[in-house]
Amino acid sequence: MNVEKLLNPVKLVLVGANERDGFGGDTARNLLEFGNKDNIYFVNPSRDEVFGHKCYPSIKDLPEDIDQVIIATRKETVNNLLKESAEKGASSAVVFASGYSETGKLEDKKDEEELKKVANELGISLMGPNCAGFINLIDGITSYALMIPKEDRKGSVALISQSGQTCLSAMESQNMKLSYNISAGNSAVVKMEDYLEYLVEDEKSKVIAMHLEGVQEPEKLIKSFKRAAELRKPIVVLKIGKSEKGSASAASHTGSLAGADKVIDSIFRKFGVIRVDDLQELYSISMTLATWDELPKKSTVSIMAISGGEVGISADTSEQFGIQLPDFTEDTVKKLNDILPTYATAKNPLDTTASIAYDVDTYANTVKAVLEDENIGTLILGFTLAEEIYDPAIKYMAPGIEKALAETNVKKPILMMPYMENTRNHEYQERLLKAGVPILPPPKYALPALKKIINFSEYDKSKKSLEVAIPSKISEKTDSQKVLNELDGMKVLQKYGVRTPISKLAISEDEAVKFAEEIGGNVVLKIASEDIQHKSDAGGVKLFINGEDNVRKAYNEILSSVKEYMPSARIDGINVQEMVDQATEVIIGVSNDPQFGPSVMVGLGGIFVEVFKDTALYPAPINKNEALEMIKSLKAWPLFNGYRGQKKLDIDALSNAIVSIGDLAAKNKDSLIELDINPIFVYEEGKGVCAADSLVVLKDDTKII
Amino acid sequence: MNVEKLLNPVKLVLVGANERDGFGGDTARNLLEFGNKDNIYFVNPSRDEVFGHKCYPSIKDLPEDIDQVIIATRKETVNNLLKESAEKGASSAVVFASGYSETGKLEDKKDEEELKKVANELGISLMGPNCAGFINLIDGITSYALMIPKEDRKGSVALISQSGQTCLSAMESQNMKLSYNISAGNSAVVKMEDYLEYLVEDEKSKVIAMHLEGVQEPEKLIKSFKRAAELRKPIVVLKIGKSEKGSASAASHTGSLAGADKVIDSIFRKFGVIRVDDLQELYSISMTLATWDELPKKSTVSIMAISGGEVGISADTSEQFGIQLPDFTEDTVKKLNDILPTYATAKNPLDTTASIAYDVDTYANTVKAVLEDENIGTLILGFTLAEEIYDPAIKYMAPGIEKALAETNVKKPILMMPYMENTRNHEYQERLLKAGVPILPPPKYALPALKKIINFSEYDKSKKSLEVAIPSKISEKTDSQKVLNELDGMKVLQKYGVRTPISKLAISEDEAVKFAEEIGGNVVLKIASEDIQHKSDAGGVKLFINGEDNVRKAYNEILSSVKEYMPSARIDGINVQEMVDQATEVIIGVSNDPQFGPSVMVGLGGIFVEVFKDTALYPAPINKNEALEMIKSLKAWPLFNGYRGQKKLDIDALSNAIVSIGDLAAKNKDSLIELDINPIFVYEEGKGVCAADSLVVLKDDTKII
Repeated sequence: MNVEKLLNPVKLVLVGANERDGFGGDTARNLLEFGNKDNIYFVNPSRDEVFGHKCYPSIKDLPEDIDQVIIATRKETVNNLLKESAEKGASSAVVFASGYSETGKLEDKKDEEELKKVANELGISLMGPNCAGFINLIDGITSYALMIPKEDRKGSVALISQSGQTCLSAMESQNMKLSYNISAGNSAVVKMEDYLEYLVEDEKSKVIAMHLEGVQEPEKLIKSFKRAAELRKPIVVLKIGKSEKGSASAASHTGSLAGADKVIDSIFRKFGVIRVDDLQELYSISMTLATWDELPKKSTVSIMAISGGEVGISADTSEQFGIQLPDFTEDTVKKLNDILPTYATAKNPLDTTASIAYDVDTYANTVKAVLEDENIGTLILGFTLAEEIYDPAIKYMAPGIEKALAETNVKKPILMMPYMENTRNHEYQERLLKAGVPILPPPKYALPALKKIINFSEYDKSKKSLEVAIPSKISEKTDSQKVLNELDGMKVLQKYGVRTPISKLAISEDEAVKFAEEIGGNVVLKIASEDIQHKSDAGGVKLFINGEDNVRKAYNEILSSVKEYMPSARIDGINVQEMVDQATEVIIGVSNDPQFGPSVMVGLGGIFVEVFKDTALYPAPINKNEALEMIKSLKAWPLFNGYRGQKKLDIDALSNAIVSIGDLAAKNKDSLIELDINPIFVYEEGKGVCAADSLVVLKDDTKII
Repeated sequence: MNVEKLLNPVKLVLVGANERDGFGGDTARNLLEFGNKDNIYFVNPSRDEVFGHKCYPSIKDLPEDIDQVIIATRKETVNNLLKESAEKGASSAVVFASGYSETGKLEDKKDEEELKKVANELGISLMGPNCAGFINLIDGITSYALMIPKEDRKGSVALISQSGQTCLSAMESQNMKLSYNISAGNSAVVKMEDYLEYLVEDEKSKVIAMHLEGVQEPEKLIKSFKRAAELRKPIVVLKIGKSEKGSASAASHTGSLAGADKVIDSIFRKFGVIRVDDLQELYSISMTLATWDELPKKSTVSIMAISGGEVGISADTSEQFGIQLPDFTEDTVKKLNDILPTYATAKNPLDTTASIAYDVDTYANTVKAVLEDENIGTLILGFTLAEEIYDPAIKYMAPGIEKALAETNVKKPILMMPYMENTRNHEYQERLLKAGVPILPPPKYALPALKKIINFSEYDKSKKSLEVAIPSKISEKTDSQKVLNELDGMKVLQKYGVRTPISKLAISEDEAVKFAEEIGGNVVLKIASEDIQHKSDAGGVKLFINGEDNVRKAYNEILSSVKEYMPSARIDGINVQEMVDQATEVIIGVSNDPQFGPSVMVGLGGIFVEVFKDTALYPAPINKNEALEMIKSLKAWPLFNGYRGQKKLDIDALSNAIVSIGDLAAKNKDSLIELDINPIFVYEEGKGVCAADSLVVLKDDTKII
């Protein structure tokens, strides 16, 4: 779909223009107030003019060809208007009407399919339906039905949202300056992924902010993520669906499928996409990234405030949100001791004491000293710039900040953090923004926002495998599946280089005895039957078997237990298996998302996964770095790494196994339904791993390649 | 100290009145603007008048006696001015001067001691030093050096802060209405605890908000907490010192000792004190509690918003912050289906769709339907009431809310939550506040704030032991301590009813043999020496010993190992101990805080405490309910409670042991330094516990009673 044409039309026609409150009236008002009247046509058969601008009875009657039609009339009229518009040369359309797939009703979904068909046949790039249009602030185009503030909002954040409300409040969010503000609605024709693809390449858009309810084209999404990672262009995403209720809500709001949230989360991590929790965080992070010329070069932060109480809050909330406040260098301490009053202490976070905030030079010198400290990556100016009774300190601080920046060659990001919300003081807000200092909300927003920006600045694509094994077509969950028998499951792992116990399928008592002798030492006997998944429950497992008599005894006991447990079970035989040494038990699992394909999960076995939910999930394929990161991200990581003088575990071998399982999963993305290794024994450093038990579930009529 | 007199003076004198920016000038301005001129005197030897109000050369020259002196002059002048004021009848003083204990310097600390002495000798209730004074909004008294807004801020939140900045911004915080605004500074004479004690009894103050940097009088603090719990009056505390840097900052800011943070945290839990993370949360929670006539009666919440996107955010952030959104009753679903458009779905969180927000009656009916749902405790109206281009919906919603409240008998708390900050619209803010609907900041503040309020509403003092074993005098850490030997340690536990293995001290090989026979079965032999704390490391422990020969062998091996390990160790003998069955290992520990006395810690043994930091801490004494709550608060709780078909552990016996250890610790608060039971074996339900190893450390010259 041609997004360029959709966002950059010259000649526009609004069908359904009127003077009432509502989409038809508000869009007419926006077009006249912010657009070029010469390029705007109104259509309304029952009016001669709207807000003094001529109205035509129909599209056919327009005196010249048009580029874009904005349809503010009812759903029933849309398809015909699109046809008329196409005849008048329109290559793009904005459709406000609702009542399509978002209702969840079958007939409305069908109507949306029909709309898509019509638009595609006519070659029309269509925004919506169920949307509020867009503003192209770069070129001054406002095919937009919501309120627009008087204040200049032109800037470099491109916002794409399925929710119109998000577009509305963005225009009112503190310090927010936009390149595009796109209310995409159901995005039935031009998809969220299409806008993203376009904006990633758009040089006017420094940051992309997305409010995403569901993914429609995973492959295109991943392609744009990859491209953005290459360009180091930040994508900030508010993705609904972390909770079950949120997921349901997203589905009913725009008819989108929310997708398995943890999978999407791990994909965001792979590509350095910044995920936010709510609207305010979406605005704060994208606004800050658009304002700054530099990303933090270090993860460390200094906070300076003029109130001791606020310095204490800064210290506590920094720890709460994982912000590191290192000590100043000796040099900085010396400088600060010269600048600050004797009763101040040159520590980070820095209580400058109030007195220095009433002198431009002193404040400038303090800012400069901290900014130039090589231990510090980002400077936070803690100050509550209130609306009404603001502290006059800002009269000295603002020029002080400007002076410090003029006098230093050090380029580091700075932000202002208030300790209370509603600190909007337009004059100083704009002044600080010009100096490159955005004002964020209080700590519970400002600090997690900064943390996410720091994580983005530390994202290193060279350490990531920038691939995702997207299934060939978006696949549905299927009931027709098969479980590999244990031996076949083991062969799959062996093929990908994962060690398993030596195992042989005996189909007679004598063969079992023979295999046990060949393997030597203690062996395990296990029932082999595709019908029995929980072998132990069926009495189908015997451990520590040694010697002919015991093998025979175990063989027969297993057969009779299983027969009693499930008389109908088809028995393939009994696996005679090497009894491997016990060691630390780890679980590796693969699940397969219909949109994003297989992800690998790893966790310490048993209660650590089940009670402490201590797992790491990552999309396949996975490289060695990523596998190591997965292991290190576990809370149980110290137990792998030489806990209390014990020997370190073979982390190298475990990460190799994760990489292998990732490869296996990626190559078999269209056939693998589920894979579980529970447990894989992890031995001490240098001694490898061994997959002691595995479950492989495939789609029917497929096999592992 | 008489707080009543300090906060309610009639005749005031300001020493150091002038017309400049700064404390002397600003206080003069406040007094004249907000006070009763007839009761105000200014003193400044170098001026005849200030802002047109007569100035006297000295206090002595005042024409009548005064109640309170406000000293805006330098530190060096203070003590003498206090004396002069006392001679003129003053019983209270406000001292702005800084340079006392907050500098951390010895001479300044001495000056503060001298100031205290002078004030005490003169019987003067003194606020400060290093403070900004107070406003008594009930009686219109403004001994206050900071800016005061024009807007009426009279209300029922009493704010006490050691930081002046907190008092300043409170006056500008959205919806905040105060009874008292007290900047207590170093609180050298009248302590934070004195203000609290007074305000807990003050009927005009419905909520107490404290910004506390350190505790000076733990006993008084606890007394007020207890009284507030009895009155169900909320105390909301911002206590600095969660982080090491925060703790250091608090100490240098007002010269306060921050105290062991986790201990204070657990004391807050005991008394239902609401702890907040930052200033904004302090303001939001106290403002909300002051606005509402009712506390939530259920922990459940409904969120209704007019944007589907915002409903999705509401669902996800509710889960993130532990807010429960239950389903509506069938009755409510029916009602909503009648009210809402057909494309809306009657689910919680509720997407009302935008259309209903443009009709007063429909909106009123929707609010009423949700409010009357018996499953719902609190109603959140999700709506971004912006400053400039606000959604006109509020014109219909505000009267709709008022109508709903007028038409229903159901009294439930309601709040409005925006999705973006800076949503101050004074007209509707005031109107909603009058209807009892406060506007909170966006979700990351609003939802944790509501969660804390719900926790407060569920706090049940009848289930708590409202006692804390405060030490007789605030005790310092001491080096002169002794470690009880194992047998004495066991006796201590036995005395308090905690089972330990049978254990006898053998001082000869023969005696060891005899004791082993008496005990029967397997025994343990352990070195008994006060010099050896880590017995295993010294080769001083032998397990599973059975039969005379083995006892003799173990006895001698232990002695020779220990001799090699520490030749100088004094040996008391060898303990012969019952070899108790192994079971789930739990750790119980006691630490003793110099201000708040002993706390008991419990956690599952080993990595669960060390790697997962999964522990619960609670101040002694502890009742059975509290002990159970401690165990249930562990992440490992499922492992106690019949995990995966295993038998439940004897939680009853474990909680009895916690109660006993709490009693022991409370009774010995002045002698016990540390106690560790590691492990205490917890057997299956009905089979009790057994403390297998313990360490008891006492102050020298004390014993356990």
